[in-house]
Amino acid sequence: MFVLDERLQGDTVFIGRFPLCQVLLMNDRRYPWVILVPAQSNVFEYYHLALKDRQQMMSESVWLAEKMADYFNADSMNVAALGNVVPQLHVHHVARFETDTAWPAPVWGHSAAEPYSEEEKQARVKEITQLLESHLISGDKVISEDTERDFIYW
Amino acid sequence: MFVLDERLQGDTVFIGRFPLCQVLLMNDRRYPWVILVPAQSNVFEYYHLALKDRQQMMSESVWLAEKMADYFNADSMNVAALGNVVPQLHVHHVARFETDTAWPAPVWGHSAAEPYSEEEKQARVKEITQLLESHLISGDKVISEDTERDFIYW
Repeated sequence: MFVLDERLQGDTVFIGRFPLCQVLLMNDRRYPWVILVPAQSNVFEYYHLALKDRQQMMSESVWLAEKMADYFNADSMNVAALGNVVPQLHVHHVARFETDTAWPAPVWGHSAAEPYSEEEKQARVKEITQLLESHLISGDKVISEDTERDFIYW
Repeated sequence: MFVLDERLQGDTVFIGRFPLCQVLLMNDRRYPWVILVPAQSNVFEYYHLALKDRQQMMSESVWLAEKMADYFNADSMNVAALGNVVPQLHVHHVARFETDTAWPAPVWGHSAAEPYSEEEKQARVKEITQLLESHLISGDKVISEDTERDFIYW
């Protein structure tokens, strides 16, 4: 059974579900930063996903990256699966700007996160939820580890 | 027409071709580090690729990551598209070890590359070429921007 890694849970705010992934907001007010975690147990690398789930992962990731890039008018999208600290597969999507704190260095390992204030956090969660709402789904429609299918959800 | 970014060209050694991507070795002796560059013009983000090419990209990337992880017995594979410095889409695949220089920080922006000696470079290129040879293809079989197809090459 899938359980979100404790550290990811502590560092993020839950936004909702795509068919395969949990959608999480990184609690760092300096960057629009969304993390996708495929909700399957024992997945540490892309290649641990079944072929159809890899394709679903790619679809969800690419759709998210394009939405974020357009909406935030990003100079670059950083899309990365690292896993050095948290082994559970999670894919970062960070909208980057030539004016941001870490540019052009990566955000990971650059400096400590600056958490959102409670008010900022609520506003950002609402904003991201609205941005993604066409593809956020409710609990009974998610892909479980046992969902047999031969198609990609979008 | 596809032209490899000059900075990528300067920082890497050409290994060969997958159907979609150029396969490049990063010239940094501290990490097994392979970069895939889809050989298409004007592609800066994943979502600039056509759907079939995204799936091909994913297939090539996942296959490479698994090969590298197994062969080098990596503690983690870092797979990332950043593009803050070089906008042309290129996907890093870095085999990471708990004992490596930058661990657990990312390798990008950590410290200057340590180039291979000529002898080391030749040995590493040979090693990676042998590792990937089942999927390296010759020039007349590559996917061009005009290749019409409705399948993934592997």
